[in-house]
Amino acid sequence: MQFLSEEMSGHLKNSSWIRKMFEAGIELRKEFGDENVYDFSLGNPDLPPPAKVKETLHKIADGILDPFSLGYMPNGGYVEFREALAAKLSKEQGVSIPMSNVIATCGAAGGLNVFFRTALDKGDKVLVPAPYFMEYNFYTSNFGGKLVPVKSKDFTFELDVEAIKAAITPECRALILNSPNNPTGQIYSRREISELAAVLLAKSEEYGRPIYLISDEPYRFLNYDNMDIPSLFELYPYSVVIGSYSKSLSLAGERIGYIAVNLAIGADAAPLMGGLIMSNRILGFVNAPALAQKILIDCIDEEVDMNVYLKRRNAMAEVLDRAGIEYTMPKGAFYFFPKAPGGDEGRFMDALVRNHVLAVPGVGFGCPGYFRMTFCVSEDVIYRASDAICKAASECKN
Amino acid sequence: MQFLSEEMSGHLKNSSWIRKMFEAGIELRKEFGDENVYDFSLGNPDLPPPAKVKETLHKIADGILDPFSLGYMPNGGYVEFREALAAKLSKEQGVSIPMSNVIATCGAAGGLNVFFRTALDKGDKVLVPAPYFMEYNFYTSNFGGKLVPVKSKDFTFELDVEAIKAAITPECRALILNSPNNPTGQIYSRREISELAAVLLAKSEEYGRPIYLISDEPYRFLNYDNMDIPSLFELYPYSVVIGSYSKSLSLAGERIGYIAVNLAIGADAAPLMGGLIMSNRILGFVNAPALAQKILIDCIDEEVDMNVYLKRRNAMAEVLDRAGIEYTMPKGAFYFFPKAPGGDEGRFMDALVRNHVLAVPGVGFGCPGYFRMTFCVSEDVIYRASDAICKAASECKN
Repeated sequence: MQFLSEEMSGHLKNSSWIRKMFEAGIELRKEFGDENVYDFSLGNPDLPPPAKVKETLHKIADGILDPFSLGYMPNGGYVEFREALAAKLSKEQGVSIPMSNVIATCGAAGGLNVFFRTALDKGDKVLVPAPYFMEYNFYTSNFGGKLVPVKSKDFTFELDVEAIKAAITPECRALILNSPNNPTGQIYSRREISELAAVLLAKSEEYGRPIYLISDEPYRFLNYDNMDIPSLFELYPYSVVIGSYSKSLSLAGERIGYIAVNLAIGADAAPLMGGLIMSNRILGFVNAPALAQKILIDCIDEEVDMNVYLKRRNAMAEVLDRAGIEYTMPKGAFYFFPKAPGGDEGRFMDALVRNHVLAVPGVGFGCPGYFRMTFCVSEDVIYRASDAICKAASECKN
Repeated sequence: MQFLSEEMSGHLKNSSWIRKMFEAGIELRKEFGDENVYDFSLGNPDLPPPAKVKETLHKIADGILDPFSLGYMPNGGYVEFREALAAKLSKEQGVSIPMSNVIATCGAAGGLNVFFRTALDKGDKVLVPAPYFMEYNFYTSNFGGKLVPVKSKDFTFELDVEAIKAAITPECRALILNSPNNPTGQIYSRREISELAAVLLAKSEEYGRPIYLISDEPYRFLNYDNMDIPSLFELYPYSVVIGSYSKSLSLAGERIGYIAVNLAIGADAAPLMGGLIMSNRILGFVNAPALAQKILIDCIDEEVDMNVYLKRRNAMAEVLDRAGIEYTMPKGAFYFFPKAPGGDEGRFMDALVRNHVLAVPGVGFGCPGYFRMTFCVSEDVIYRASDAICKAASECKN
């Protein structure tokens, strides 16, 4: 009998490549031992949270037996956390963001779902430059929307603003920019975003409905070359910033993030915030986890040490260079997105697995011919994998 | 311009009566002071969490600087928590429930959304005995479903199985039972549930698609008269239990709950669990909050003291008796759902507010003519409100 919805049955069948990598990893570890498998497939931050998180959690524990210490709060989050968020984001974005324009969410993934539940009408389209984080497909289709990927420029992954312009139709409700980017590690420049903003503004006016520009930026703090990461709030009125502290504080499993709405939206921002808060409630989040909010009230300015990731980036670049694999150097986040040696990524993935290396094929990001390697692993593992990566590359080059 | 979806705009307009009560409370407190306002409107548990939660949180804090301490975990939850859940639920439900049949969710509200995302096809209907918790409307409509309330028997709120039978159509995908019930405080008997199960089983076979029986039971531990709370797993194969520790451990804001699927579903349970875990991921929960899961691993058998609620129930019964207000004694949860004196609940709500008392009108639960009072407040407040409630009642009886 039919226990799943038809849509969910289809989803389950189509998730087979992720399962394949996951199962390959389990098999390899079983056969060769953990230390002989080089896993660059997952973006699960391995650095411990900053020391202040420990101190803060003890402080919270001391007060935990007060009534309502972990009780329901307003659906948008604790006032103290929203105030801390507003102050932090005002500084980061270089524009004033009042507390009333931010809410706490269950990570950035929760924030994106809440936003789409609030803004999408059935049949709406959401554009995204490809390669892109595949989960966006689900976040939009959960609420009757459809994700439309638009190819970025080859190899450098700069925005192809002309291609985006050509893809915009009246059903276009939003465009997602993820910068620093997963999977490419690239940061979009002020020029690219300004050109994009001009196109979106003209189209919003033409259609009489705002096309939102959503900045998904959990990697903002990982900016290795101290580049300009432009604030969308400065450049485009109908913009929304969604982020999380999963990476900056290494607490991805505790689920804490936010949505911030541009003050430039004006009087319409109030009903929009009302809608976001309601979506947060009715999707069953109700509110972002209480403990995470309490931790963040004290620790919002803490960060794991970026230099650890920087050294790993340089180590991985060295290894890829040695293997003769071509890539554009990542400016942020913790991913390389190189060309697959020989051009056939499936063949290269097989070669990597034969050499006990796990990565993710570019097709998993809507961009065949490439692959993603994460540097959420120690330098030691990166260097130890060097021979195996070289061997896999040489197997595929001919 | 249109910043919200059409559906969300409609939702915001229709939530005005909640806002009215909330705003009435703010106004009253401002004018007369906190101690002169008697608020029985909210179900936010006021008891502190059990002492062991404090000890456990300190222990967690001690280990928080280990790598991955709060990192991503499998989307269904930590294995240790799922094992603890499976053991606890096997005992509670009187049937064996393996770890593979349970997942951790972001509260019961998260669990319900995850379940509906997994099982509902567009246009499916979900039945619920009325009065009922209004949020169920959203949890179903989030995913293209439609909630169909079916009136229970007057005053006693026993299930009207004949009426339910008459309401079942081929689009019927599920029925939600909330026992002990919000808002009535009633517990459905084994006889009622057995009759219902027979109807659902026959209809499932007739239509060739299972009609799920969903037991939403966050109030299971609040059972004042030690009644039989039958396990749906024993009585109906296509059953799912969804619950939370919001009430039993007073941590509603930290968002921890679960879904458990009946072993009797057999081989089809595996893809169903796969679908639930995937929905947990793609709705942006990703996983239930890490800290809450870690707390529950140690504290799953802890409970706040039920006797405190029992005394309050009896105090509130005394006050309602004194006011001559008719009710069926609640057997569980922490709500009374009495008849509105004079029959016009709107008029009675106004009279209560004039006397500084806040409650929720029955229309907020799909059941006009009644009202809900919560006993998440101290006995002192209940007794101090006695004169005000008597006065409001006498104002409406003529």
